[in-house]
Amino acid sequence: MKIQLGCDLGYQVNGPTTVILNIQPASTPRQRILRESLTVTPEGTRTESWTVPETGNRYLRIHAEPGAELLIHHEAEVELDPHVVDPAEVTEVPPSELPPEALPHLWPSRYCESDRLQRLARREFCDAPPGHARVTAICNWVNERVTYLRGASGPTTTATETLLSGAGVCRDFAHLSVALCRALGIPARFVSAHAPGLVPPDFHAVFEAFLGGKWWLFDATRQAPLDALVRIGQGRDAAEAAFAEIHGNAMPSRMEVWAKVKDGLDVQKDVRTTQAVADVAEAP
Amino acid sequence: MKIQLGCDLGYQVNGPTTVILNIQPASTPRQRILRESLTVTPEGTRTESWTVPETGNRYLRIHAEPGAELLIHHEAEVELDPHVVDPAEVTEVPPSELPPEALPHLWPSRYCESDRLQRLARREFCDAPPGHARVTAICNWVNERVTYLRGASGPTTTATETLLSGAGVCRDFAHLSVALCRALGIPARFVSAHAPGLVPPDFHAVFEAFLGGKWWLFDATRQAPLDALVRIGQGRDAAEAAFAEIHGNAMPSRMEVWAKVKDGLDVQKDVRTTQAVADVAEAP
Amino acid sequence: MKIQLGCDLGYQVNGPTTVILNIQPASTPRQRILRESLTVTPEGTRTESWTVPETGNRYLRIHAEPGAELLIHHEAEVELDPHVVDPAEVTEVPPSELPPEALPHLWPSRYCESDRLQRLARREFCDAPPGHARVTAICNWVNERVTYLRGASGPTTTATETLLSGAGVCRDFAHLSVALCRALGIPARFVSAHAPGLVPPDFHAVFEAFLGGKWWLFDATRQAPLDALVRIGQGRDAAEAAFAEIHGNAMPSRMEVWAKVKDGLDVQKDVRTTQAVADVAEAP
Amino acid sequence: MKIQLGCDLGYQVNGPTTVILNIQPASTPRQRILRESLTVTPEGTRTESWTVPETGNRYLRIHAEPGAELLIHHEAEVELDPHVVDPAEVTEVPPSELPPEALPHLWPSRYCESDRLQRLARREFCDAPPGHARVTAICNWVNERVTYLRGASGPTTTATETLLSGAGVCRDFAHLSVALCRALGIPARFVSAHAPGLVPPDFHAVFEAFLGGKWWLFDATRQAPLDALVRIGQGRDAAEAAFAEIHGNAMPSRMEVWAKVKDGLDVQKDVRTTQAVADVAEAP
Repeated sequence: MKIQLGCDLGYQVNGPTTVILNIQPASTPRQRILRESLTVTPEGTRTESWTVPETGNRYLRIHAEPGAELLIHHEAEVELDPHVVDPAEVTEVPPSELPPEALPHLWPSRYCESDRLQRLARREFCDAPPGHARVTAICNWVNERVTYLRGASGPTTTATETLLSGAGVCRDFAHLSVALCRALGIPARFVSAHAPGLVPPDFHAVFEAFLGGKWWLFDATRQAPLDALVRIGQGRDAAEAAFAEIHGNAMPSRMEVWAKVKDGLDVQKDVRTTQAVADVAEAP
Repeated sequence: MKIQLGCDLGYQVNGPTTVILNIQPASTPRQRILRESLTVTPEGTRTESWTVPETGNRYLRIHAEPGAELLIHHEAEVELDPHVVDPAEVTEVPPSELPPEALPHLWPSRYCESDRLQRLARREFCDAPPGHARVTAICNWVNERVTYLRGASGPTTTATETLLSGAGVCRDFAHLSVALCRALGIPARFVSAHAPGLVPPDFHAVFEAFLGGKWWLFDATRQAPLDALVRIGQGRDAAEAAFAEIHGNAMPSRMEVWAKVKDGLDVQKDVRTTQAVADVAEAP
Repeated sequence: MKIQLGCDLGYQVNGPTTVILNIQPASTPRQRILRESLTVTPEGTRTESWTVPETGNRYLRIHAEPGAELLIHHEAEVELDPHVVDPAEVTEVPPSELPPEALPHLWPSRYCESDRLQRLARREFCDAPPGHARVTAICNWVNERVTYLRGASGPTTTATETLLSGAGVCRDFAHLSVALCRALGIPARFVSAHAPGLVPPDFHAVFEAFLGGKWWLFDATRQAPLDALVRIGQGRDAAEAAFAEIHGNAMPSRMEVWAKVKDGLDVQKDVRTTQAVADVAEAP
Repeated sequence: MKIQLGCDLGYQVNGPTTVILNIQPASTPRQRILRESLTVTPEGTRTESWTVPETGNRYLRIHAEPGAELLIHHEAEVELDPHVVDPAEVTEVPPSELPPEALPHLWPSRYCESDRLQRLARREFCDAPPGHARVTAICNWVNERVTYLRGASGPTTTATETLLSGAGVCRDFAHLSVALCRALGIPARFVSAHAPGLVPPDFHAVFEAFLGGKWWLFDATRQAPLDALVRIGQGRDAAEAAFAEIHGNAMPSRMEVWAKVKDGLDVQKDVRTTQAVADVAEAP
């Protein structure tokens, strides 16, 4: 499946500012970047880019000076070849058998306070069948208890706050799901993505759980088809997979995001919940 | 029903200290104090007592000086004539019809953050039949989700913290229940009590909800029979119905509490959940 | 001093709604209501009013039906005769000597978690001279550490959250100050008010501390002269002194508030911090 | 300087349990392990070990079965050659110049909610001279405001909770300091260590700030000399540098920790605050 995606971001720069962006898709065996272009305006703006080996996250650091609006235009075409299997084949791995690289994803993180949800998680999900089905049960539980509501949460909102308030946006759904997975001993991490079919178009946030030796994608919001997601960044939570970090004095002035399946291919809704989807792009 | 009750409290006083106690049963038409004695040692310790008209709470203020252990011995015999009816008769009163005195018990309080639980409460209890049955549904919900566990909570633990941790003691059960009631528009308040049958013997904490023009007793812990509860104090939450407040420098050194139904009368367990019990002692 | 004040409030009513307002000034020996008018539109809207004896708070309950906009127009002229003395005369009262009515204002409340700030309060204010000067030190401390910023806080923001975030509005300044007073053993309460001189005009929130047998006014925002404040309501915190509570389905559609010193009398700025002002209106 | 160190840990194993330990010193150019022994009892207990390349943390995973007490004995002799310079030479690096590896240590983490402390940190430390002196100012500020008190905090206590409570243990001092550094744009991370001179002997927690291209050690508790610290693990906070993680059913039954400077060398107290100490062991 080919996806055409991109974004236009703008900043009003009022003082020397460093903007760090993680908006470019990761490059992996199953997520190939066919073509890509990035333009930063004004011309001559100093930029650096690097890829973090352990995560595959691609960063762009821009050094902006006050004056003309800072504009970033990115577009790419990506070919996806996701690994889709029957969820029943996807089992849990006990902590005794987890590979060392997966263990850090059992730890609590800034927005996923799994250490505070041990008892609740065990009570709610002890009877769910282990494996992909248990993480699906978590997604369903979160989906039933959290209303998708813009403005109900903010940049410091955590999983426990979302559980209490019962409302949030995609990152809150992901955080609460991740926290519940970890509380049950299932490694889980946050994933930022382009998501064709999202209404209105925007960046999206989903999560991955480590099951049967791989990282599998889940989306508790059920707003986008898993097999058409284009991974951008990953991290313990949104603190580690932000689209943009601003150091200095600049205000966002523009944001447009798009992602479309090429050739009008129909995105199949049922892939959202009934199939196990792994983007084997993950590092490690 | 006659109840014999009392307590022995001791404090090691290391500096000038004011101890404020609320340990004496309230005196009401349906809770008559047949006899009562109170001894404060050392002899000559300055004490004052008063009753707050709006709540009926009885306070004892003791001015202690360093030296001998401060000892308080209280015992009383109380006759209860609780008002017990069929729960089906006990209906909800909408905010438009609530008497002014009940309205403050809709407000959030220190340990009952009902303002943070609006959406969750509506989602969980919107289908429960209104009235006594809905508050019973809240008690059952709390009882299923909170493990009674000494040491799991502390003096500053709130309802939302208990919901997240899934463990607590009687005051935590009461706080969470009260918060959920208020979030649904049902006035609720915290009640401290003597409870025959509690194992081990201790002071107890329950709550009341305002339904059908009266305050009705509920105990989400299910640890004591409602119709044998002897009310001590009431307030918005434990901050307003503490057994003891210490200002100064003293440490608790002793605490024994007892409450027994006289004549060996059997306390009927089923009164705990299947009957509506009002102590018409309430003020107002 | 005579103050002319009032407000226009509007609500778009989308379903049966009960609105409870506490917008009318309290009537006290030193705050006399010279004239007052209240109009609720549409005509014929059912309303009730009452005054709570213990606080003097005046409530208006309005039963609104969907249809025309609900409009409340209130205006009054009030004569103030505040009790102003030299702050040096205003001393602290130890818990052992506090009148019973003042003791509840030592307890923590929903938005003033004094129980979590004991150590911090003692560390910061142990060297401040007791009495009015210590509460002034608290106001100065809060004023230096909290930036007045609309939008930085919300209806559930508490004193500890304000201390951490370092920003808030008048109610947040009052909550943090009240919490610090209580943590030091000084009874304190929240007061809602009309404040001539506020820019832009709005309702205001200040607080009172119990010192030397009376309740004295303080305003950590320093935005309004204390001796021209017209008290509306009082309570443990904003949960108990809200201007408006809405039960049902209505949205605020209009809000205008005004308060002016009659005869163009100059409001003296220095009364804000250098004099002790008691509105002896207090109940009790 | 040579340090002799070690620990004896015991666990009562009640069911199949995985224990993950990070108790062995990191091996770095300036922290050489001269000799080391590790014994796990009962003999034959299955263990695995690995070192994480990015951090140098050494992990030991032990698979324990119920039965005999699980005992771990570790001892080592380590030679330290810390890099000590004049603090005045140690400057801050702006976000625009930070190496990519340091950037993640600007992000908030589970126990270091720097995103909630931006305004407070800037207000308190805007006037402190940048560089090593500013981080020292943070340490002093934390030391003055936090009382070292066992039992005042728990495993889920965060930096903001410590700031409010004003009490904690070494990990709390480190968390609050780290959070304040990050809020000011200074990368900071948590370090677990052996600390000669600690009374009573125990594992210790300190932190590092990234200044002038290196990670420098700081200890807001002032309880141990920086130049004799033996680094064990590092991470964003204690969630990522725990001495022991237990998955399964086991209870700690024993813990003894020791660390001594060989040859009775005097540990110089003033190194604690007046010199800049870098363990150039850091990875990356």
